[in-house]
Parts: sequence; structure tokens; C-alpha cells
Amino acid sequence: MEGTVLCTANHAPLTPISFLERAALVYPDRPAVVVASGPAAAPPRNWRETRARCLRLAAALAGLGVERHDVVLDEPDVPAGHPYHEYEALLRSAGGGSPDFSIRWPADENEPIALNYTSGTTSRPKGVVYRHRGAYLNAFACVLLNDMTATPVYLWTVPMFHCNVCLRKVSPAAIFDSVARARHGVTHMGGAPTVLSMIVNAKAEERRPLPGGRRVTVETGGAPPPPEVLFRMEDLGFVVVHSYGLTETYGSATVCTWKPEWDALPAAERAAIKSRQGLHHLGLEVDVKDPVTVRSVPADGRTMGEVMFRGNTVMSGYYKDAAATAEAMAGGWLRSGDLAVRHGDGYVKILDRSKDIIISGGENISTIEVEAALFAHPAFAEGAVVGRPDEYWGETPCAFVTLKDGAGESVGAEEVMAFCRARLPHYMAPRTVVIVAELPKMATGKVQKCTLRERAKAMGNIAHPRPRSRSSSSSKQGGSSTVVISLQAQPPNAPQTA
Amino acid sequence: MEGTVLCTANHAPLTPISFLERAALVYPDRPAVVVASGPAAAPPRNWRETRARCLRLAAALAGLGVERHDVVLDEPDVPAGHPYHEYEALLRSAGGGSPDFSIRWPADENEPIALNYTSGTTSRPKGVVYRHRGAYLNAFACVLLNDMTATPVYLWTVPMFHCNVCLRKVSPAAIFDSVARARHGVTHMGGAPTVLSMIVNAKAEERRPLPGGRRVTVETGGAPPPPEVLFRMEDLGFVVVHSYGLTETYGSATVCTWKPEWDALPAAERAAIKSRQGLHHLGLEVDVKDPVTVRSVPADGRTMGEVMFRGNTVMSGYYKDAAATAEAMAGGWLRSGDLAVRHGDGYVKILDRSKDIIISGGENISTIEVEAALFAHPAFAEGAVVGRPDEYWGETPCAFVTLKDGAGESVGAEEVMAFCRARLPHYMAPRTVVIVAELPKMATGKVQKCTLRERAKAMGNIAHPRPRSRSSSSSKQGGSSTVVISLQAQPPNAPQTA
Repeated sequence: MEGTVLCTANHAPLTPISFLERAALVYPDRPAVVVASGPAAAPPRNWRETRARCLRLAAALAGLGVERHDVVLDEPDVPAGHPYHEYEALLRSAGGGSPDFSIRWPADENEPIALNYTSGTTSRPKGVVYRHRGAYLNAFACVLLNDMTATPVYLWTVPMFHCNVCLRKVSPAAIFDSVARARHGVTHMGGAPTVLSMIVNAKAEERRPLPGGRRVTVETGGAPPPPEVLFRMEDLGFVVVHSYGLTETYGSATVCTWKPEWDALPAAERAAIKSRQGLHHLGLEVDVKDPVTVRSVPADGRTMGEVMFRGNTVMSGYYKDAAATAEAMAGGWLRSGDLAVRHGDGYVKILDRSKDIIISGGENISTIEVEAALFAHPAFAEGAVVGRPDEYWGETPCAFVTLKDGAGESVGAEEVMAFCRARLPHYMAPRTVVIVAELPKMATGKVQKCTLRERAKAMGNIAHPRPRSRSSSSSKQGGSSTVVISLQAQPPNAPQTA
Repeated sequence: MEGTVLCTANHAPLTPISFLERAALVYPDRPAVVVASGPAAAPPRNWRETRARCLRLAAALAGLGVERHDVVLDEPDVPAGHPYHEYEALLRSAGGGSPDFSIRWPADENEPIALNYTSGTTSRPKGVVYRHRGAYLNAFACVLLNDMTATPVYLWTVPMFHCNVCLRKVSPAAIFDSVARARHGVTHMGGAPTVLSMIVNAKAEERRPLPGGRRVTVETGGAPPPPEVLFRMEDLGFVVVHSYGLTETYGSATVCTWKPEWDALPAAERAAIKSRQGLHHLGLEVDVKDPVTVRSVPADGRTMGEVMFRGNTVMSGYYKDAAATAEAMAGGWLRSGDLAVRHGDGYVKILDRSKDIIISGGENISTIEVEAALFAHPAFAEGAVVGRPDEYWGETPCAFVTLKDGAGESVGAEEVMAFCRARLPHYMAPRTVVIVAELPKMATGKVQKCTLRERAKAMGNIAHPRPRSRSSSSSKQGGSSTVVISLQAQPPNAPQTA
């Protein structure tokens, strides 16, 4: 347009480095990082110091000859003969001595800024490349998603490598302590559903009341939280923001935006609404699409499709894996591998990971829905459902559950059966329930369903001496169910069945 | 980087059109626009309707043959023979009939999105070209600057053409009414210092108490607000966010970020701190620079320079005026024309517009500082200071003030003199004080200093029968001051002097 220009006066590459600079300028003396407890507890580090440490690290890396596009990754097992630099020693070294290092700003905002590895829930971990532009825009989205104002205090509970956040040790007592203590004044925190379960199942002596009138916003995601957990969190005084995303979308990509008119609904309905993954947040678009045609499924709450994303906060690609990148983005959308429906109001509801869904007698069974029903049982602390081979139906749901403290072995097979059938169509109720001391988990807190699938497989086919034909959709497989209850202390090689 | 791509899956032009789409998706039934009072009061318009109206307008414009890069502007005086379309009729027309118009998204985020005219305070109005990228990023900055969370209620008080916000009629009663009424539940508002003056000077019967515990954030800017006004606003229960910017920076560009440790300071000190323009917000950088060398001035609170900006929320340029664009951005920074110092903590403090500063006997006098001192006088509602020709000193400060209701003509010359001298170095105290019924203002609420300068000039040179030499810096021009008080009903052609 005549009279306009594009020059340094009105264009700069978007990069989160500018946030570090501004925080150090505006809030030099305010705490940037507080290690709340444990052996590493130390005085808070302020933004001036944090910026200086970043520049010292940059200076040290530059001193080692590291250049643009080189990859540096923290490596616990250093191969023999490989140079090794301890982090703090490196910061103190000659190269890292100067906090006056001149920042090397990106020339192009699409240059890579970080490499994050997927947790490998469904396959081998892949290196996800983030760029400056995406990281900058995602930061805004996170602030808005969590209703953050100028000086939030965020309690980190998630592992460091996972979308770049941090953890020492997560325990209910430590969480209540950080949140309730006026000294820390936590206003926001994140937590996988596992962390939420930990909070709602905390012992009476570990709990502390939240300071009166203070609102603590908890962002959850990673796996769809059972409605029951969401509801109990609210009872404790937490405001739960349910979000959903992938490492490939810089973390959170959708949010179940809450509408004031829902406040008046009964608790169970509120929890069901909040367990939906919701609508896309800023930075990208979400859609539920047919994986073959890449056409949107109707927003009818019934037609299943794959969750797909596109936009500025979608990864640049998988590091050194052009084939995987092309496969993930085929059709111009990033494929999530999650199966979902879209409701009439546009909200997305995930039914399952495409690899987790159970196909039983030709019917799709969402393991997430079965888990939500199981979790409502007062004796169960956590539960995960996978398919177990079944000689007649192909596979049927098999639940692995942990008991709450004090629940003992008092759970009877018939009771669990009745409980699930009251809440689910009969064909979705688990045929096998295995009580375990602990569920196998990734470092991110996600349950390792692949491990559980192996265990279910090892239990062998469910035999059907007299298979009966289906009579009605409301009592599918209803006649021949068997519930298996066993109590196992540790990962079993040969599970007991009774 | 190997394995990465740039495609529709991970790149989209930044544009605020995406906000309209998301608001209509997430909050279709929530109010988008409420006309609070006056003849145009109507039921609230929700986001679904607002989106539909935008698409109807777009369809209508497309139907008229308007294309990318064409300029449409609302024109009260239509030249004879020119086609004329009334807004609502156009929306209802055949071309504007369809809310299903397919949005023409920008192919490049640097494409122009809007043309905004400068208010012409200092020169003829110029057309400032905004682009999609800048408008998108500026929206984030505004949200963060005002500590807005998910569903703010913003009271507009500023004219429509000025950075695209709107107004019907501003009165203290209407403002208190909108803020105090639970039905509207205003949480945020903007207002030029004139509007703030209006609020703090409201009559007792116009005032209403703010609802208990509710915080109303007021963003102010346009001209530096006198500390006294900021302080009185706080007393009334408003939280004032002091920001500063130009039409050329998409509005607000700096914010006087408040630090909790300042809460404990005496009121006068708090007000003085808050009257500073502060630090750059997201989207750009601010600096105070020597206008010739474009080098930063030292952050010593004393060395004056010109405020300059650079970054993504700096305009694309002046419409069809490449020369003015080049001049404004010479040296790779946008020149503001405002003179300022930078304090040790980085905060910028504007002393004056470069065209407004008074040079008296070789000393720079900030008219803003003189105005701040005048405003503290209990009888004065508003005041503006300009230079008046002075045969000995070149020029000396001449104040035009309005009286508060009930203050009458009770203000004596000697009292004003003593009042100003107690608060300012003697050479900065006004030699001429003219009481007027109203100050001449732009539609944005800014005082037209050029008009006042003409008036001061028309009053003629101040004569010095026996000029005295300066004796000390603390009593410069101290001996020969004269204070002129006159009460004038309307803009005077021949002001009285006494």
C-alpha cells in the first residue's frame, strides 16, 4: 500500500526472548523461581538473576563453539570420551562468566528455538521442533487460557522435558502446603489427571484449607480427567481449567471454556460438561475430521473422527524425520491420533486414543468412558482400561484399578459389575477387573497403556463355552459377563484370576 | 532444520479476524455491544449477531466491487453525484443480505487492515495504516495491559475514529451509572485525562459508590494525567492504569507498571510515580534517544531526549505519504515528537510535546509539570499551559484554567502565585493565568494547545520596564512576575488583563 514500509522500526521477529528481557526490566527484584521444598530449596531467584543466568549459559555455549541450529540436550549417560560439562560449573566457567553476553536474536521468527521429545505413550519418542514464533504466540495463549493477570504464582508439577516445565517431587502434602501457605501465594498450577487424583484422594492430615476467597486455577490435561475428579476438585475450592493438547501443539491447544450459565446445572452435569476437551484456543484451530477424506464430521455428538490441528502453534516438524513429519501433517492438518466427536455447541469430546479404543463385536468402546464410570466407585483411586482378547467378541474391556487407602480387599465382583452396568451400556462394562497396587506410568504421569495391554494379553483369551447371540443394543454381551477380581502387590507376571 | 516444514498445518497469517470467529464460536450468546444510555439504547447485541453483521457488511462491500487494498471511509459530507449508502440500509441490501459470506482471509499478515487518522494535535491529520499482524499482537498487549480475564465488560468513552473505539456522550453521571449498575457490571474502561477530571470533579448528586469489593480498571493516556487526578481517582475506588502511546503505535505502547512495594509510599509519591509513562508493553520497544544521533540518553532522570518506538505494533506508514513515513521512521525508530527523560529504573517520564515545551531565558519548561502544579489548586478543574511572548525572557508560561463549580471568582492573583511558587522553581511559575469557562479540545478530549498558543500570542508581549539580572537558579525570574487573572465566558478574542 502506497506510503507504507517494512523495516526495523515496524517489524521484529516474534520470540519469547523478548519476555525474558521485559521481565528483567519491569520486575528485576520479583521472584522468578522458588524451589518450594526438598534438598534443593534455596532463596528465590529473581528475574534479574534469571536473565543473568540465561546469558551466562548462552555465553558458555557460544564459548564451546555451539552455533545456530546446533542441538544441545541434557544427557544423564555420557558416552565415554565425550566432553562433559556440569551445568552450574559451566555457568561459572570462563565462557559463562559474563552476563553481558550480547543476545543473538533470531533473524527469522520461524527459526527453531527448542527440541522437545514426545513422551512416547503410543510409539518411540520423537523430537518435536518448536520455533520462536510458535513459542511466543503460545505464551500468550497460556496466559489467557489460565486467566492470568500481572503477577501470577504458578506451581509446577509436570516434568521438565515435557513442553518445558519443571518438577522436584509431587506429593499431596507438598501441593496443599504450597497452595495454602501465604508465603508462596500460589494462584495457578498445572497437573495431569494423576495429580488431580492425588489431591482429591489426599489423607485428612495432608489436607489444608485454601485461604478464604482465594481462587487457585488448575490447568489439567494430558489425559481426559474423569468427571468425578473434576467435581471433587471443585468441592476442595480449586477452579479446574480443562485443556488438551500434544507436545506437537506446544502443549495446551483446546480449552473447555466455561460459560456462566452452566453454574446453575446439577453437579454431575457440570462435571460431564467440564470433562469435554472444548474449543481451540488462540494460536491454532481444532477440528474433528474423517482421517481419510480430511472432511469435518458433523457436530452431532455421535459421529467419531480424528482430532486435527492447524495453526501457528503447531510444531515445525519431527527432528531429522521428514517422513514422520509428512505423515503427521498429511492433508494440511496435524493428526493427533485421538478419536473424538463434536457436540452441537462446537465443543470437542475425546473418546479415546486411536490405539487405545476397544473394538468389541464390531462396536467401538471408549476406554475413557469406561474409566470415568469406574472412577465414580468409592473404593477406587485410579483406573485404566484396555482391551483383553476374547475368543468370541474379539476383545472386551479389562480394567486395572488401584484402591483407596482403607478400601482393603472389600470390593466384590458382583458389586463392581452392578456398579458399571448402572452407568454404562452392558457391552461397555469391563469383563475383567484387576486390582493393582500401582499403575505403570510415564514420567509425565500418563498411564502406560501399552504395558497394561501386554498384561491383559498375557491373561489369555476369555473363553465362551456357550456364546449367545446379541438380542438388543441395550444388553449387548449382557448375558455372559464374568468379572475377575484379584489383588496384586506389584506388576504381575502371572496374574491371578478367580 | 532437517525434518521441519512450513505449511498450512503450522502457519497462518496473524489476523484479528480470528478473534471474531472464536468469539462467535465460544460466546455466541454473550453480549458483544451494549449501548448503555441515550436515544440509541437497544437490546445488547451478542457475538453471533456481531459476526453476522460483520459478514453482511463484508458481503455488501464485495457486492459494490470493493477489493483488497481499496479504502472505504465513513464520510459525513458526501460530494454531489457521489453514491451514498446508509450503513444499516447497506447491511439490509441484497449484497449485504447474506451472513454466510466466505471470509477473505489475508494472504500475508502484513497486508493493511485499517486506516486511522491522527487527531491532528500537532499538525494536519495523517492516515495511519495498520496491518493484520500488528492489530493481532496489539490485541494481546491490550488484554495484558489491563489485566483482563475471560469476560471483561469494557466501557468505551473515546471517539470511534481514534484507534477504533466508540462513544455516544460522556458525562460523569452516565459513567458512574454504568460502573455502579450491577446490570452492566463494568470491569474496565478507558478515558483521557479529561474524562478522569470529569469523574473526580463530579457533583455529589452525580456520584455513586462503586459496588463493594469490585475493582474497575481505568486505562488512561492521550496526555499525561496530573498526579492529583490519579490520586483522587484512587480515592473513589478506581484502579488507574497509566498508559501512553500514539495512533502510530496502535494506541497504548507503554504502561506505568505498578509494583506492590510502592503501595506503602505516601499518596503524593504514589501519584508522582504513577504519572510516569513507564515501560514498553508487549509488541514493541520504547527508548528515549537523542533525535540527531539516535543514541539512547542516560537513564538519569535528567537528560532529555525524544521518545522513540520500534516493533510489530508500529504502523506500516502514512497513507500515500512516503515522505512523512520516511521522516517518522528515520534511523529505524518511530519518532514520537514527545520529549522525555528516563529514570534509573527504566521508566520513561514525558516532559512535553516537542512543540509545546516553553523555552524561557534558555531554560526548558515542561508545560506538563506546570499543569500538574496548577491542578493541585483546589479551585481549578482543568488547566493547560502554553508559552506567551515575553520581551525579555523570550516566552514565559501562560496558564488557561477552568474553575470548579462553586469556586466563583474567588481566586486571587497573589494566592495563585504563592501556590505555584511553593510547588515549582520560580522560573516555571506562570506569569499569566487566564480563567476560561471551557478549554478548546479535540474530539479525543485532548486540549488544542495550538489554539491557546494563538490566544496567548494575541495577548501581546509581556513588557519588562526594568529587567533584572538572574541572581540564583532557585529564584530565576523571581522578581518581576506578574499574574494576570481574568474570567472569560467563551474563547476570547481580546482577553482582559488586570
